[in-house]
Amino acid sequence: MTARRRRGEALEESLLQAAWDELAAVGYPKLTMEGVAARAKTSRAVLYRRWPNRVELVLAAMRRHAPMLSGEVPDTGELRGDLLALLRRVTSGLEAIGSETIHGMLSEYIRDLDATVYPHGRRVGAQVMSVILERAAERGEIDRAKITPRIAGLPTDLVRHEVLITQRPLPDGVLVEIVDDIFLPLVRA
Amino acid sequence: MTARRRRGEALEESLLQAAWDELAAVGYPKLTMEGVAARAKTSRAVLYRRWPNRVELVLAAMRRHAPMLSGEVPDTGELRGDLLALLRRVTSGLEAIGSETIHGMLSEYIRDLDATVYPHGRRVGAQVMSVILERAAERGEIDRAKITPRIAGLPTDLVRHEVLITQRPLPDGVLVEIVDDIFLPLVRA
Repeated sequence: MTARRRRGEALEESLLQAAWDELAAVGYPKLTMEGVAARAKTSRAVLYRRWPNRVELVLAAMRRHAPMLSGEVPDTGELRGDLLALLRRVTSGLEAIGSETIHGMLSEYIRDLDATVYPHGRRVGAQVMSVILERAAERGEIDRAKITPRIAGLPTDLVRHEVLITQRPLPDGVLVEIVDDIFLPLVRA
Repeated sequence: MTARRRRGEALEESLLQAAWDELAAVGYPKLTMEGVAARAKTSRAVLYRRWPNRVELVLAAMRRHAPMLSGEVPDTGELRGDLLALLRRVTSGLEAIGSETIHGMLSEYIRDLDATVYPHGRRVGAQVMSVILERAAERGEIDRAKITPRIAGLPTDLVRHEVLITQRPLPDGVLVEIVDDIFLPLVRA
């Protein structure tokens, strides 16, 4: 790795850190390229060379600092434990980003949906769920025939809805209700 | 009613119309008190005398022009028909307001949640659902013991989630899936 390349990576890291700190400090509605540049002690041009607008900059900072869903699959040995582990991870990921930030980004970014954080989160979530459900089916816990894509997405869809709509810390009891009262009765063998 | 009072109501009506038109024209992120005042051919002071900020102004226009949920209860004679009628009404109400507007308002208004449109919509929705479900229980279609508040809210929560997250017109088939594959299997007697 050349010295030049190392500098480039260190610079990008410090710019993303500044964006993340600025987001925490002022919130998404008040975040500007200028504010991030000032915090990083650089110019707006340096930011614009890497990210065309504040949505892209914040998305990049988010991917670095709050991966909403790592692709990691919980494996507790039973479906209920796997689901609760997944939902707790999704909840803390969404709460780390903050619903104010997510709403702010969605209100600006409506025309280029595929770049937003939701479809990404939904896709990764669907992959993780399919592994969890396949293991549960192999253990005989669920009936494969009862799983439609909408049902497979139900637990994370409901958690996402709660975090975004109530805009308050989500009590663990809500996750338990989603799993025990809604999801498991729909899929149990 | 005095002439003065009538003028006040006509003025308020025309201000709310201007806010609604401005919202449709420029979208929520770009809506300003100044823009609405210009469209209504008045001053910002006239707006601020009635609404403290643009969120309150837009909420008032929304209540006037796009009641997301009227309290009206569908009565088709069977649960499935009632649910689909309700979900179609919720969908068209949310789509009339537009997810861009809703996200924009939620990103700004996070600290004073009770005034937002969601909790209002959820409350009215819960009242309508309780009438629909009570009628279905009387007809023997569902088992009252299976209804929890979260399950009763499930159909409208899922529609709200879809409209806000996908930010695309919601196909009627999604409403049918929510009713037939998710809600009815959970509550049927």
